[in-house]
This record gives sequence, C-alpha cells and structure tokens, in this order.
Amino acid sequence: MSHNSFGHLFRVTTWGESHGPALGCVVDGCPPGLPLTEADIQHWLDRRKPGTSRFVTQRGEPDRVKILSGVFADETTPGPVTTGTPISLMIENVDARSRDYADIARAFRPGHADYAYFAKYGVRDYRGGGRSSARETAARVAAGAVARKVLGDGVRIRAGLVQVGKLAIDRDRWDWAQTEANPFWSPDAETAARWETYLDEVRKELSSVGAVVEVHAEGVPAGWGAPLYGKLDAELAAALMSINAAKGVEIGDGFATASLTGQSNADEMRMGNEGPRFLSNHAGGVMGGISTGQTVVARVAFKPTSSIPTPRLSVDESGAEIDVRTTGRHDPCVAIRAAPVVEAMTACVLADAFLRHRGQTGGGAFAPGVEGRR
Amino acid sequence: MSHNSFGHLFRVTTWGESHGPALGCVVDGCPPGLPLTEADIQHWLDRRKPGTSRFVTQRGEPDRVKILSGVFADETTPGPVTTGTPISLMIENVDARSRDYADIARAFRPGHADYAYFAKYGVRDYRGGGRSSARETAARVAAGAVARKVLGDGVRIRAGLVQVGKLAIDRDRWDWAQTEANPFWSPDAETAARWETYLDEVRKELSSVGAVVEVHAEGVPAGWGAPLYGKLDAELAAALMSINAAKGVEIGDGFATASLTGQSNADEMRMGNEGPRFLSNHAGGVMGGISTGQTVVARVAFKPTSSIPTPRLSVDESGAEIDVRTTGRHDPCVAIRAAPVVEAMTACVLADAFLRHRGQTGGGAFAPGVEGRR
Amino acid sequence: MSHNSFGHLFRVTTWGESHGPALGCVVDGCPPGLPLTEADIQHWLDRRKPGTSRFVTQRGEPDRVKILSGVFADETTPGPVTTGTPISLMIENVDARSRDYADIARAFRPGHADYAYFAKYGVRDYRGGGRSSARETAARVAAGAVARKVLGDGVRIRAGLVQVGKLAIDRDRWDWAQTEANPFWSPDAETAARWETYLDEVRKELSSVGAVVEVHAEGVPAGWGAPLYGKLDAELAAALMSINAAKGVEIGDGFATASLTGQSNADEMRMGNEGPRFLSNHAGGVMGGISTGQTVVARVAFKPTSSIPTPRLSVDESGAEIDVRTTGRHDPCVAIRAAPVVEAMTACVLADAFLRHRGQTGGGAFAPGVEGRR
Amino acid sequence: MSHNSFGHLFRVTTWGESHGPALGCVVDGCPPGLPLTEADIQHWLDRRKPGTSRFVTQRGEPDRVKILSGVFADETTPGPVTTGTPISLMIENVDARSRDYADIARAFRPGHADYAYFAKYGVRDYRGGGRSSARETAARVAAGAVARKVLGDGVRIRAGLVQVGKLAIDRDRWDWAQTEANPFWSPDAETAARWETYLDEVRKELSSVGAVVEVHAEGVPAGWGAPLYGKLDAELAAALMSINAAKGVEIGDGFATASLTGQSNADEMRMGNEGPRFLSNHAGGVMGGISTGQTVVARVAFKPTSSIPTPRLSVDESGAEIDVRTTGRHDPCVAIRAAPVVEAMTACVLADAFLRHRGQTGGGAFAPGVEGRR
Repeated sequence: MSHNSFGHLFRVTTWGESHGPALGCVVDGCPPGLPLTEADIQHWLDRRKPGTSRFVTQRGEPDRVKILSGVFADETTPGPVTTGTPISLMIENVDARSRDYADIARAFRPGHADYAYFAKYGVRDYRGGGRSSARETAARVAAGAVARKVLGDGVRIRAGLVQVGKLAIDRDRWDWAQTEANPFWSPDAETAARWETYLDEVRKELSSVGAVVEVHAEGVPAGWGAPLYGKLDAELAAALMSINAAKGVEIGDGFATASLTGQSNADEMRMGNEGPRFLSNHAGGVMGGISTGQTVVARVAFKPTSSIPTPRLSVDESGAEIDVRTTGRHDPCVAIRAAPVVEAMTACVLADAFLRHRGQTGGGAFAPGVEGRR
Repeated sequence: MSHNSFGHLFRVTTWGESHGPALGCVVDGCPPGLPLTEADIQHWLDRRKPGTSRFVTQRGEPDRVKILSGVFADETTPGPVTTGTPISLMIENVDARSRDYADIARAFRPGHADYAYFAKYGVRDYRGGGRSSARETAARVAAGAVARKVLGDGVRIRAGLVQVGKLAIDRDRWDWAQTEANPFWSPDAETAARWETYLDEVRKELSSVGAVVEVHAEGVPAGWGAPLYGKLDAELAAALMSINAAKGVEIGDGFATASLTGQSNADEMRMGNEGPRFLSNHAGGVMGGISTGQTVVARVAFKPTSSIPTPRLSVDESGAEIDVRTTGRHDPCVAIRAAPVVEAMTACVLADAFLRHRGQTGGGAFAPGVEGRR
Repeated sequence: MSHNSFGHLFRVTTWGESHGPALGCVVDGCPPGLPLTEADIQHWLDRRKPGTSRFVTQRGEPDRVKILSGVFADETTPGPVTTGTPISLMIENVDARSRDYADIARAFRPGHADYAYFAKYGVRDYRGGGRSSARETAARVAAGAVARKVLGDGVRIRAGLVQVGKLAIDRDRWDWAQTEANPFWSPDAETAARWETYLDEVRKELSSVGAVVEVHAEGVPAGWGAPLYGKLDAELAAALMSINAAKGVEIGDGFATASLTGQSNADEMRMGNEGPRFLSNHAGGVMGGISTGQTVVARVAFKPTSSIPTPRLSVDESGAEIDVRTTGRHDPCVAIRAAPVVEAMTACVLADAFLRHRGQTGGGAFAPGVEGRR
Repeated sequence: MSHNSFGHLFRVTTWGESHGPALGCVVDGCPPGLPLTEADIQHWLDRRKPGTSRFVTQRGEPDRVKILSGVFADETTPGPVTTGTPISLMIENVDARSRDYADIARAFRPGHADYAYFAKYGVRDYRGGGRSSARETAARVAAGAVARKVLGDGVRIRAGLVQVGKLAIDRDRWDWAQTEANPFWSPDAETAARWETYLDEVRKELSSVGAVVEVHAEGVPAGWGAPLYGKLDAELAAALMSINAAKGVEIGDGFATASLTGQSNADEMRMGNEGPRFLSNHAGGVMGGISTGQTVVARVAFKPTSSIPTPRLSVDESGAEIDVRTTGRHDPCVAIRAAPVVEAMTACVLADAFLRHRGQTGGGAFAPGVEGRR
C-alpha cells in the first residue's frame, strides 16, 4: 500500500475527487483470459450506489462504470476477456451539485479530514470532501469486482452489518439471505427492523451513528499470506482501515481474545475426509499470517458520519473560531454503504495473496496425511 | 509491507528463526548523520528481552545486538553516526536448547502457525516455532530503536498494557511513570498488582490469557500519512497486526466509535496560542489518514499464548489425530513482552511517514491563521 | 518499476491500448501547490504527436489531454494547482481506423511483441499493436510534463537524435536551438538535412532504420540517486530501456569507456567560485549512482521500425508458416518521435529521485569547503 | 529496485561496507523446498573472489559465506532446503587492512563515488570505498547462487569478457569452455592471450582499462517479463547498470540496431518440431519486454578502474585543490571480476521474472499451433 495504490501483483490505483469530472481506478496485474464485462462490475457498484434506501445519501449518482482498457473480445474469446494488461475503469460524476461552497470552503469540519489535508498539502478540493469523500469507494468496489473474477467462484465474500450504534445483532439468527433483504446488509432481520426505527430517531435528533461491519470469505484455501509483513491479516487490517471512517479492525475473535484463556482460544483439529478440520474458528481463518482453509472472518468499526446538521465548534483557514453545521445529502450511518466496500477490499487483498502465493510456491497447499507434495 | 520487509523510505527487512544461529534486520533508507551506537539499540532490546520477571519466558537470551554496517565514526563525527547506507543489525541466539524436538516436530500445535506454515511451504523449521516465533520481534525492537533516532526527541512513543484477561485498568489512575515500575508496563499500579495475582492463578491452571496494549505517540506533527492507501492509521494497523498473536487493532476510540453519535465523536476545535487545538481526541490523532498534531493513539489485542501445558486435540503431518501439550519456557501472557514491540512498530511507521511526507511536500505543515505557506 | 507503474514517491501508472477508447496515466505522489493546466501538458504532447512531418506516422491523433483529478483552483490559488492527490490524465483515441484486422489478427509480425504477448497471455488485443503500441508513450509524455513541474525551471531536459542509421551527427556542430528547427530533433542542422534524403530513400526501399537519441539534463544538483539499487543511472537505464524499440542505454561516455584508460576517464576536479567543478564529464553526471551536479547525459539506441512493407517470414497462432508485410501508417524511423519520450522518462526519473532524496536527507547537498552542513 | 533492495517476489537486500566487520544480503521470497547449502553458494563466490590471478586485486579475502536463516534440514528433507522464509547470508571481511587512511580520508578520488556520497550524505565511510566498494558485489553473487536454484538446471547463465580496452574478441572463435580456462572469462582463447600482454602493459603504465562483458541466459522460456515497466530488458538494464563501474547496457544487437534496416533486424520465424523457432536473434531473446524463448543476450560496458597510481587533479572536503594518486591492491580492469556479478544479477532478475509470471498467469506459455491453452 502506498499513496493511492495497493496490492503487489494484483495492484489497484484509484483516483478522483467527489466533485471532479470523474473517478476511477487502474487494476494492474490481473491474470489474462478472465471474462469481464461492464455489467459484471456494475452488479457490485449498484449495491454501493447512493439513493437505494432512505438511510443513505440521496445524491443521484448512477455510478455507471466504463472499461477503458485491458479487456478484449474477438471471435476466439468467450466474450470480453482480460488481456493481462492494465484495466482502466472510469465512473463519471453526474450529480455534483454546483451549489455555492463558500460557507464551508475555508472551514474545518470536525471529524472530517479537512484540517489534516490542509495541514499536509496547504490546498484542498473542499467540494464534497474532495479526495477524502466516500465517493472514492466506488473505485474500490469496481476493483473488487475484478478481484472476484481472479478468485473465481470457489471463494465467496459476503459482508453484513452486525452492530449499529449500541444495537448488535443476535448471532443465533444469522442468515446470509437476509443481508439482501434489508437496507442494512443485516444478517439478522429482527435487529434490522429495530435499526430502522433507531436510525429514523437518530436523524430526527440531527445526529448520526457508527456501526460494525463483518465480512466472511469462504473457500479461501490454506496457504495464502506472506509472513511476516505481508501477513494476510496484516494486509486485511491495512485495507479495511483505509476505508473512510474506519477506526478499528479485528480478525476472528479479535479484541475478545484478550479475555480468553489459552484453552478456549485454541482451535482444535481432527482429521476429516478431506484433510484436517478445525473444531472452532477463533482465529478467523488466519494463523501466523497465513490462511488455514477456514473461513476468513474480519470486523471493521466505523465511526458515525461526521457531517451532521448539529453545530459543532471549529476554526477555519484564517484561524477564526466558527460553528460548523453540515446540511446536504449525507448518510446518517456511513457504515451502511461500507459493507460492499469491505467486501471489495477483502476481495482485492485475497486476489493479491492468491497470486503472490502462486508466484512463490506454484500455488496449492501441502496436505497432512497425503503422500508426496501438493 | 511485503514478505519480510516493511516501510517505503525507512524500510526494515528482518530475518532469522528461533533456533538458528542468529536473527536480525537490515534498516535501509535511514537519514545520514544520526548518532547511533549499539548501546542506543541495546537500551530498547533490554526492555523486551526474556527473563526480566517471572511472568515472561525464562529463556536466557542476552539479546546482544551488533551493528554490522551503516554506521561510521572518525574525528569529524560526534561518535558513530549513520551514513545513509543500510544498517545491518544482528542478534545471536545463545540459549536455543538442543533438546529433542521429536515430540512436536510433526505435530500442529493448536493456535500456532504450525499447520499454516506446513500447508503453505511443505517444510518448516519447527524448532521453537522457527520463523513464526516471537523471538523475531527482537529484530523489530532493534529497528524501532533506529526509527526513534529518525524521529528525534520531539516524538515520544510509549506503550502499556491496559487489559489482561478481563481485568482492565482504571484510566483515571493512568500514570506513565508506573509503566516502568511494574513488570506489566501497566500505567495503573493498582491493576498491575491484581494482574500479578491473576497471572499466578492462570499459570497454576496450566493456562494462559490475552491482553490489550495501548500505545501513545506524542509530538507527531500534523501532516504525516499518505492517503488513501498509505494512510497513517492503515499503516499502523498493518504494522501492529503483523506482531505475533495480534488479533485486533483500533485507532483512537476504535470499536467504541460504533456506539457514538456524530455529536459526541466530533473532535471540536478552538484556536490556541500556537494554532488550532482540539477539545477531545476521539480520532486518536489521525483524520483522513493524516496526523492532526494530536497524540496518536492505538490499541492492539493479543490472544492468549497458544503454548500451554494443558492438552489440546490436534493432528500431525501424517494425518494422525494426537493430543498436544506444550511444556517449556513460555510466557503466560505473550502480550507483556509485546509492549516494546508495539512501540517499535509504531516508531518505524512514523519514521517512514515522516520521510515520505518530507519527500512529497518538503516537510512541515500549513498552519491556519498564519500568513504565507508553512 | 513494476508492471504498469514506475517511480517510488513520484509514481506513474499508465494504461490503454492503441485502438481502445482512450489511454492515460495516473500520476501519484506529486507535491501540492504546483501550477498545472491542460495546456502545460499539451505543450509537450504536441511535440510527440503523429503527423508533424512526413517522417512520422500520419495517423491523425490530436492527442488532446484531459485532467480528470488532482488539480484544483479557487480564488486563493494562482490558477489550477496540484493538490497532492493523484492526477488522472486521459487522452482519447480518435483515429483508430475500423479497418479489417483479419489479415494480421493471428499473425506474429517479426520484430514485434505479438508472439511474446501471445505466449505470455494467450490473448492479445492485436489492433494496432494493442498495449505494446508506441501510442502508449503519449501517456509517458503527459506524465513527464507533470514531472517537469516538480523539477522546476532549474532543471532543463532536452533530447535530440545523434545518429540515424549509420549517419551520426558532427558533435562540433551541436546547437540545441536546431533541435526545434528540424523534424528530427537534430542538434546538427547539416546532418539533419542528410537524414532527410536518407529517410526518403529508406522509405522508397520499403524499409526502416534505427537511431540513437541523446538526452541532457542540466541543472540537476549533486546528491540525487539512491544507491545501490536505486542508483540514478540504473533507474534511468530501466526507464529508457522500457521505451518501445529501445535496445541499449548508456550513461556519459557509455560503451566508449571500455576503450578508455583510467587516466583519460577520470573527471578531474578543481575549485570554482561556487564549489568544485569538473574538468570533463565522462561520467555523464552520475558517480556511484548519485548525481554530481554535472549535466546528466544518456543515450538510447532504438531499433528500426518493425512494421515494414517488405515481406518477412513468420508463423501465426495456428502454427502455419506465413509471410508478413505491414502496410499502414508507420514511422520509417520510430526513434524520431521517441525524443520527447526520452525527455519525459528522464524527467520522471529525476522528479522521483528528487523527492526521495528530499525524503531521506531533507534535500540539499553538502558542499566541500563550506562550513557547517548544507 | 529501491535503495538497497531489488526484485519483487524474489527480493534481495544487500548491506555492508568494504572495511566493516562483514557484508551480506537477505534473500526474501525464495520458493520453499529447494536444496541449498553453503557450498552451493561458495562455488559461485569463489569465481569472483580476489587474488585468483595477477590481473585482479590481491586483497586476501576468502569470501566464506554463512547461511544464517531460511534453510532447514531434518530426516524428511534431502539435506538442507529452503523454507520459504528469508535467507540471510553473511561474509566476513578478514583482510581489511588497518592502514592509515589519513591521506585519502578527505580526498575526492576522481572517477570514484567519493564526492557524490559526500554531497548526498555529508558523511561517508571512506575506508576502501565504503559502501561503494566493489566488495559489495560478493553479496550479489551470493544472492545469484540462490536465484540459480530457483531457476533450476533448465536455465543456464554464462558471462564472458568480449572486449578489453580496444581489443575485442573474434566471435567466430566463441567457445564457452574457454571462459573457464583463462583468467578473463574470455570465450576466445587467442584474444585472451593478447589481453594478458596488454594488461601487463597497462599496469606498467600505471593505468587501467575498461571492458565489455556479455551474458547469455539459455533455456529461458517464452513469457517472462511484465510490461510495460517491469519489462524483462528494462529490469536487466537496471540490474546490470547498478553494478559498480557499469556505464552502458544493451540487449541483443543493442546499439548496433541503430544502423540496421527493418529487414535485417527482423527475427524471422518458422515452425519447428517443438513450436516456432527464430531464424536469428537480433532481439536478444526479448520482444515487447517479454522473453521469446530464445537465448537472452545482454552486454555491459565497464569503465576503467578509477583507482590508478597516476596522479589526477582533485579537491578535498575542505575545498583544497589536491593531487590524488591511488596505491594499494586494485584490479587493473575491474570488469574481469564483474563477469560473475553480471551472471548473478541476470539470475536474480530472471528468478524474479519467473515467479511474477507464475503469479500472474500460473506459469507456462501459450504455444502456437497447439490446441487448448498452455
């Protein structure tokens, strides 16, 4: 990860501001020969796009993706396929309202990156948050769609909200199908209903609230991850922490392991028909920075939306003390639209880990109890 | 971060196994002209080394560091100084006991990286955990000592344990001086005393326990961090998650922000005599991936030591089902010795962020209310 | 350099195929606050664009660049300035003729990358050479325009052709002004006139010819370059060798130094009014991989255009033996349009070296005979 | 390539000064399971080591390598094998003479990196050239020995001198066996004999001379190299140009292609029994930055040894004008000992290209005329 790129062999570079003409990404190092159409990418973008429920921003962005390079079709290919060259993806901004930004142009909105960008660069595109806007995450989702192609159908990545404000789901009611049936990607329908009421209240109070997103990657084979500093969990941590408003990341039982004993934390093993199986998954599918073949599990904490209509104390570029109150089209809980972004970042990290593992070792995994190698 | 290196301009590569002849690191990209002696590095290594209390492993390693390159002294220098060329640091292993490993050589110890390394590489140095041993963290601490030289006295990095098992400190009793006065780096002396009793019990029960380490970096100026994928918090997350046994990382209020409202999470600002000051630090000193000038605050959750004398179910390389029970010299709470490692990784991340910021912008920060640039 | 990106702090990622909808680049890590308009970039693109003389391809591409991100203007800025965020540049392809490629779609054109791309990827965009087309170099020139802004007016980068086929210039007639006055960027007007006749003959013979481009970077201060593997000359070598059709790179006296004695190769030094001065520049401004303050001098050999109307033996994807004859709009000497590309790559390498030097050391250079540091 | 590391998946970091206690390297990303002993590495080091003939420095360095990590042996392995973890290699300096350096400590030796290091870093280890000494190339050769293991027996890399001063070999007499039979790695025994006389004269004249080294890598399959900026030839160019005293690099016909016509430069193809074969190799085995399956051919020009006993004009750190005359144990033609280094760097570049190709594509190459993929 460096500046605006991440990944090593599967490498994504994103660009674009909230109110510029467009945003996008370049996906480099993609294996050749993978079927890839704009529709394949659009499918995932549509899950993140604004305006899908009353709980997310109403900015009217169709988030229509264009593939500008890296894909080719002729009579010998099964439709458009990747060529192994860089895939340039572009999404035009169409609803960047030309309203007057004079009121916030020089203000540092509390909880926002305004002050930090000013201090670092001395100049910033304040329109809609500029580069620090969550609109950039559309580029991540687009890249994630390519990453899923690299991973293939064997790896399934799904995220859902497991906590909004203080209201956590009941894990006994976990049902992945529900994540597609409510506006919160909640795997627990009952809690989703409570969040609906809760978020309406939050909005009435001119406030916002944080949340926790959990992601599962099933089907990840054992052996991915490049210890010690390319550990799979370390790379996931960086990728997820880089998402706007993220303040914490945990793998498997995460912070709860601090309270566990060695006995209870141990994921014991027995032999199954297809090799070793674990009797539990406290580790979240990663040990020593390498995938174990269990489901990879991570959680990300998102802070409440910083843009709220309740005034907060601040200063501006001139050093004047001011009150800041943000009106406009903002998500009351920014984490809701983060679920597809968490999935996308997970997909990108895994695709890169896959290619690097294949590079170093040829791919595959050594299996206990099996003669010969791989 | 990639394989066994991390950092961009200030780049650290570590090497070595628990029972090999030595371990070490190469620190590349260090600015020239910084005074650096073996004693400077030894100071920090001594804080991490085994055998300093009954709560850590009794392995008798002096962890004596040798500087093999990158430092030079003659009559024109104020003692040995860095030359800008790679600094090679080596620590010889002297107490790698030549006991028979036959009993665990083929076993996958639950909670350990054994199985994952086997699946990935097909061969592993099982002696003392090989590359996945916490002994490698000595190299991180050595590198961290160099990083502190890069940062200078203006940046102060201190870590302490804030929770052991379910017992958290009382933050009202926070006193940094206490971290040097008890064997747990606890800023709260009273809780440290309770941990002592608690850990004796844990050991009697042939068990182990997890913990949470908190690190503060004071004096970090505004402007460090390279969004969007070299965000300061994302790089900290990766660096801290890469430490052995880490399962979670949070910045500022971290997971607690999920329960906060937008009003309470906002770090409001007023003007002070030396520029803007924040009225709170929920953000942990980082916004939009860039330091704000506030203290950078992070926490890391460590799982309980996986090596416990209580048998656990497992399998071995042949696929046989076995019981694993680890005897030997192990820390009952691996996080205790992790505090200096958390400090070191934080120092390395900050040193790299400093140099990259200076590279892109010339260094310094733009100040609100101040005429001209920087 | 990796896949489609190069540079470390000043990092360029290019994308696009010859006959896709567009090509472009993302320039990441650019310092903030630099004035930058589309016209600034267009100036350099116009020097490389097709159709400027009868000696280059007549493809009608205006090569009009659009800045999609990373630049901002309001009433506080002196026109549009860089913001420190990624600068996305796009050039639309407008004259990609929709002719039938059926005749060459499956053929491997001798001297081209066709076979190599097929062998590596199994699929390739054969239209106009796809990714391996020299059209991609427009993106390099655009990036180079940004790099020149980073370097400022103090560094002047100019390239010219010094040899076409067997006809080399007379170095005694070297006049930079001439490079703007003839279609070959030749610093020697007399030789340029001979090339004109010569290239007309080459074309009549349905042939093509190679050439040598020489680049000078004046004003590079001492101290840039990061030995041992980020040496300035090593990075120049990679950057220049990555240009289409390049087959050789040399620094300073280059291959001629093999025939020199130690006495004649030594660049002796005396003290001048502003510090040391060199009495010669066999080294081409780089010693030990670090700039010396002298003009940086490099030369690149380009092979003849591989696309010629004279039939050559080859095979196709089916394994059939064929004759290949390339018609269409091709440069008889591809190196002519390479001069601006050589300049651009040199600018990018220098901009990156500048930022990295500033990162590690704070910038500046230590001066012999001067009290104190820097 | 960055600072003191190069390679992406197969990544080498070197460290050490000429007169420090030791030098060495860390080889990271090596595939697991490869047999590797100190003797395997020593074999190649012995070819580079000083004192093997009267034409190279007489410094008495045994260059004995120690493997400190990354290799493991037990009863299940066929001797010591790589484990996939970093391989740390160390060579102690034993003949770093403790003579007084006072006479050159402050001098800038013409043709050396002294001045450039001083200007960049302000401090330098002047003993024996410090970091810029050719002694560092021992670490490259050690790394190259590991790279050869990665490449396996199918890839054969050999280098020889093809020109010393103005005396070039007769290519019709090329015989690889001769490179092992004379002290110059010359494939032409007759010319080697002339060099012997010539170099004795050079030394008598208190001078030195340059040379050209040519390297061939046979058995490289089609498909390696990562265009556009990880092109195989671009990476070779950087790797070879980073060797001490290198001033030029060319691939295949190199600078001579500038004088070729399109017809003569085209490497025509016919079908052979095992796929396409080329009728010539002007390209040097690389097209479009990707290997073609032909022998990879590169040449490197080395300048004359800068350390000569004939006085040259210079200045020192105080700004005083001085005469510099270098006595001591120096190679009259530094390129002689460069041949093993050129081989090693080529091996490292190829090993990295192999792993990256395998990462992106799974390895293998698509074959014309063959049904199905790969």
